[in-house]
Amino acid sequence: MAESSRIYTAALIVIGDEILSGRTHDKNIAQVASWLQVQGIRLKEVRVVADDTPAIVEAVNNLRVRNDYLFTTGGIGPTHDDITVDAIAEALQVPVVVHPEARAILETYYDTRGGLTEARLRMARTPQGASLIPNRYTGAPGIRYDNIFIMAGVPSITAGMLDALSGELEGGAPLLSETVGCWVGESEVAELLRQTEKSHETCQIGSYPFWGEGRTGANFVIRSVSAQDLAACTRALVLGLEALGKAAVPGGI
Amino acid sequence: MAESSRIYTAALIVIGDEILSGRTHDKNIAQVASWLQVQGIRLKEVRVVADDTPAIVEAVNNLRVRNDYLFTTGGIGPTHDDITVDAIAEALQVPVVVHPEARAILETYYDTRGGLTEARLRMARTPQGASLIPNRYTGAPGIRYDNIFIMAGVPSITAGMLDALSGELEGGAPLLSETVGCWVGESEVAELLRQTEKSHETCQIGSYPFWGEGRTGANFVIRSVSAQDLAACTRALVLGLEALGKAAVPGGI
Repeated sequence: MAESSRIYTAALIVIGDEILSGRTHDKNIAQVASWLQVQGIRLKEVRVVADDTPAIVEAVNNLRVRNDYLFTTGGIGPTHDDITVDAIAEALQVPVVVHPEARAILETYYDTRGGLTEARLRMARTPQGASLIPNRYTGAPGIRYDNIFIMAGVPSITAGMLDALSGELEGGAPLLSETVGCWVGESEVAELLRQTEKSHETCQIGSYPFWGEGRTGANFVIRSVSAQDLAACTRALVLGLEALGKAAVPGGI
Repeated sequence: MAESSRIYTAALIVIGDEILSGRTHDKNIAQVASWLQVQGIRLKEVRVVADDTPAIVEAVNNLRVRNDYLFTTGGIGPTHDDITVDAIAEALQVPVVVHPEARAILETYYDTRGGLTEARLRMARTPQGASLIPNRYTGAPGIRYDNIFIMAGVPSITAGMLDALSGELEGGAPLLSETVGCWVGESEVAELLRQTEKSHETCQIGSYPFWGEGRTGANFVIRSVSAQDLAACTRALVLGLEALGKAAVPGGI
């Protein structure tokens, strides 16, 4: 396989009791997923685990070896329930150290905010040998160790860390997509979808039904790394829908 | 351990390329999580996997044996990308059959809607030996097999299936929670949180910071299966915050 067609993959671990209890609605899966698409990296799997060391260790060790990149969100703050750094260091079997650069960043940040207390200094701890991911919003940096990217759980801070990483990671051709909407029950066009995907082997078609305005509809998402194949497959689907007497809505409903 | 204090656990597998691409923001994690809380069942882990048979098989076989219950959402519609039933049957090593009762439900539902086509009949397929979860909205039922609950991916349909299962599953004492908000940086009260949790061993305290209205705040969530211990821990935290000159906001900010 040529280098340009190599597929880069990533996994995401969302760490936090608050997601598993239903108290907090996760926003990081969608934002990490969208960001990875732009980087030309495919998100293969997400796991949501509790603030629980064995659960984090297992997920980290399982996912870091079978993906090019592993991202985590959550559990890197100053309080007792922030155990992500210690758990990942345990997974990697490296010690946790106070990172000098992180300490300097926090000293500057808290200089006018009451000083660098013991609790705040927790946010300078990293697995030994890590580098930092800048955080312009609240000082405390994210952490990079090998192919692992340890980020904050608060979505606005996660967004800033992703922004700092944009263009930094090697990726492949981004997966392109087109959406075609139609006021049709997906079961009425299931055979068309199957045949259209089959005759465009570099494309995948996903079917996402909905019920709204008292009518049944669906959006069909065509994905491919080839812009040309994507356009051909989309055109074939639109013509196929029209042949069945169904108007296609470009861009989706 | 007394029967009444047994902890019942569940895992959830969210199946769908559309979540991993960032196109669709998942709503099922939060709704399944909240529903399980009410049933007295703890959600231990969530995995989001692609519409990919090996990925589904691995997740199902891993999670069904180490939890009391396993839920899945997504991939049970009539189109070619709906592979959940086949993948779960493969994981269980049982054949897929047309379930007579599901077929009858779909025949009735589609009687006035164009008839039961081959594509629609796909939604009557189940692992052999399964029972059904009613779906009042769109006919096509969910599926129960042993401790596995196979549900739709469209959140409103998932909600209906959860509703049909309410009170049907054996659970333990529900995990209760209280929330206390405070306009304080969590790092300023990290030691108080740690000490308060430590001195109330049946309770856990989670700290969830935010930045809003130009001020820094946090919500502290105290969880316990004991209403009495929960009240005592919450009271201790409120008094501790007040001793530091910080006003506690009951119910959170």
